[in-house]
Amino acid sequence: MEAYFDNSATTKCYDEVKDIVMKTMMEDYGNPSAMHQKGVEAEQYIKEATERIAKTLKASEKEIYFTSGGTESNNWALMGAAMANRRAGKRIITTVIEHPAVSEPVRFLEEQGFDVVRLSVDRQGLVSMEELEQALTPETIVVSTMFVNNEIGAVEPVEAIGKLVHEKCPKALYHVDAIQAYGKYEIYPKKMNIDLMSVSGHKIHGPKGVGFLYISEKVRINPLILGGGQQKGMRSGTDNVPGIAGLGAAAQKVYGQLEANRAHLYGLKRYFAEQLQSLDEVIIHGMPVDEGAPQIINAAFLGIGSEVLLHTLEDRGIYISAGSACSTHKRSKSPTLTAIHAPKETLDCSVRFSFAEDNTKEQIDYTMTVLREVLPVLRRYRAH
Amino acid sequence: MEAYFDNSATTKCYDEVKDIVMKTMMEDYGNPSAMHQKGVEAEQYIKEATERIAKTLKASEKEIYFTSGGTESNNWALMGAAMANRRAGKRIITTVIEHPAVSEPVRFLEEQGFDVVRLSVDRQGLVSMEELEQALTPETIVVSTMFVNNEIGAVEPVEAIGKLVHEKCPKALYHVDAIQAYGKYEIYPKKMNIDLMSVSGHKIHGPKGVGFLYISEKVRINPLILGGGQQKGMRSGTDNVPGIAGLGAAAQKVYGQLEANRAHLYGLKRYFAEQLQSLDEVIIHGMPVDEGAPQIINAAFLGIGSEVLLHTLEDRGIYISAGSACSTHKRSKSPTLTAIHAPKETLDCSVRFSFAEDNTKEQIDYTMTVLREVLPVLRRYRAH
Repeated sequence: MEAYFDNSATTKCYDEVKDIVMKTMMEDYGNPSAMHQKGVEAEQYIKEATERIAKTLKASEKEIYFTSGGTESNNWALMGAAMANRRAGKRIITTVIEHPAVSEPVRFLEEQGFDVVRLSVDRQGLVSMEELEQALTPETIVVSTMFVNNEIGAVEPVEAIGKLVHEKCPKALYHVDAIQAYGKYEIYPKKMNIDLMSVSGHKIHGPKGVGFLYISEKVRINPLILGGGQQKGMRSGTDNVPGIAGLGAAAQKVYGQLEANRAHLYGLKRYFAEQLQSLDEVIIHGMPVDEGAPQIINAAFLGIGSEVLLHTLEDRGIYISAGSACSTHKRSKSPTLTAIHAPKETLDCSVRFSFAEDNTKEQIDYTMTVLREVLPVLRRYRAH
Repeated sequence: MEAYFDNSATTKCYDEVKDIVMKTMMEDYGNPSAMHQKGVEAEQYIKEATERIAKTLKASEKEIYFTSGGTESNNWALMGAAMANRRAGKRIITTVIEHPAVSEPVRFLEEQGFDVVRLSVDRQGLVSMEELEQALTPETIVVSTMFVNNEIGAVEPVEAIGKLVHEKCPKALYHVDAIQAYGKYEIYPKKMNIDLMSVSGHKIHGPKGVGFLYISEKVRINPLILGGGQQKGMRSGTDNVPGIAGLGAAAQKVYGQLEANRAHLYGLKRYFAEQLQSLDEVIIHGMPVDEGAPQIINAAFLGIGSEVLLHTLEDRGIYISAGSACSTHKRSKSPTLTAIHAPKETLDCSVRFSFAEDNTKEQIDYTMTVLREVLPVLRRYRAH
């Protein structure tokens, strides 16, 4: 049996995504900037994808800008917002548990002279609203938090954060890294006080190499990539029609079955968590099962190095992650686990299981059978 | 009959490209940063693509960095080189006929205080070596020119430019926008004195949304997009495995048949040019047919607005470009035609035909038949 439980790293494309990518590579392959019919046809795919995505957010089509993925979206949002507003102030507020696609651009901006505040989180991974309130000075121009943490599935109080940001600092922009949340939650930026929001295609069964940045029509940021003036001059470069069309198809499908998917994911998560809790020396990190994100369980198997467990499971066809797996082969300690003050003995032996709608209870049964078999063996070699 | 003559705007994907894109979307869909087998498999595609591309350039695999396309490659090369070397000097030298993906980042850098020199070109579109020599002061940090001009197919003396740059300014980096040249010419950056070179996938029958930047191992530039540290920290973001694998397949195929393709393209171009020259009031811009790029003919049909001709031909299934068609629906006068001092009466009535290997003489015969029929009709409405 095979059990791919690394869906927060990347997902398999939907068939509908494959079909539209094929069609736009081989038949309707025009350049949307071309004035002739083949350009107009290609542009139609962009328009349709934009409509599909805007609908999932109850947003205007003018607020969707396509990028090469979540990392570019995050970079653009942070650099673009900081640069556009640098005369209004220098403070950027973020958290200690951001993905490197946020924390690295923030570090760069800090080197350029911006004043960065990194909010701490509690043991569940939730941002402190008190710390945020104190940090929100009149010089604050950008606040950036995750929606769902990629390592432990903590779900941040985005709507409340946005409300506080806008009340205390009407000029500050609130950016949300929603890469692990889009496709799992209803997200309505206007209602939730979000000004900028980053999304990636390949986390929702869409193509790799494409994502979008939601930019509220009320705000203005600088472009990151300049050139031929595509996307209203905000993101130049020949539109990636297959990627964009594929992303639109994935967004439509995932939001068409959102509640059923979520129920299925929580069913799997609960089922797995219950059985994990029946094992000795297993600690599940983060929020209570029903409050954390539906697709992520992060658990420590005490005494077993996370990479050892990862490779043991992959030999049995079970694919999981040690660390966030979004950083390239990093072996350093997880910043999220450190930030939530996870018990020291869990830091080197925590792994992430992340589910998608095509995972089954049978795969979890199989995984439990394997775990019950291998854990005692692996613990024989435990380091003391 | 259909005749797609807008291949410099974008091309149809090769079947081989489609196949590998499909496979990496639906089967080998892992995240190359994952530590398990599915990650390793995915990484193997990146490695293979890198090898295939490096081979076409006689370059080291360490010198190939994947991007979201030609525009990002150009932005990264210019911004990254300028920022990495800003303490060594402030001068950037470019030309008046660059694509907006170069001229716009250069304009941005100029606004940030860099000192920009834009070299003029002669009536064929060739950069003046005398002007370049004068412009190369000790403060020069970057020189950026095209290899093949996208509008008129002028082929710049890249090797000689690079030689002069390195002789007069050993610290300056020479960047080449090779987006219209890669796949048409043997390009060996080491031999040709190129430090940085931008390439796009979708101009060579590869996927849209992917390209690469060649960075000589001797030079250092700053990254543009920060995050998880993929590609040795130089370009973060989950690797676009399908795009990269597709680009590798396209590069291998196009260079496997380079001479045959080029002979075919020159055959089409010569055949078309001869017949165009037999028509009244047609002026072909740029270099002599056999010296300009094999795939591009830019011709003025005096008295007929370029958009009028474009739409007339598209009604007959012939797809061409008015302007470069790489900028989004721009209607302003072509900077390249202005720069080469093209006769005033040609500026509003020039169109670009751009060929690919799957175009045929029959398509050109058909186009000539259509032109002979429509030109007299269209000229009846000529504005005086």
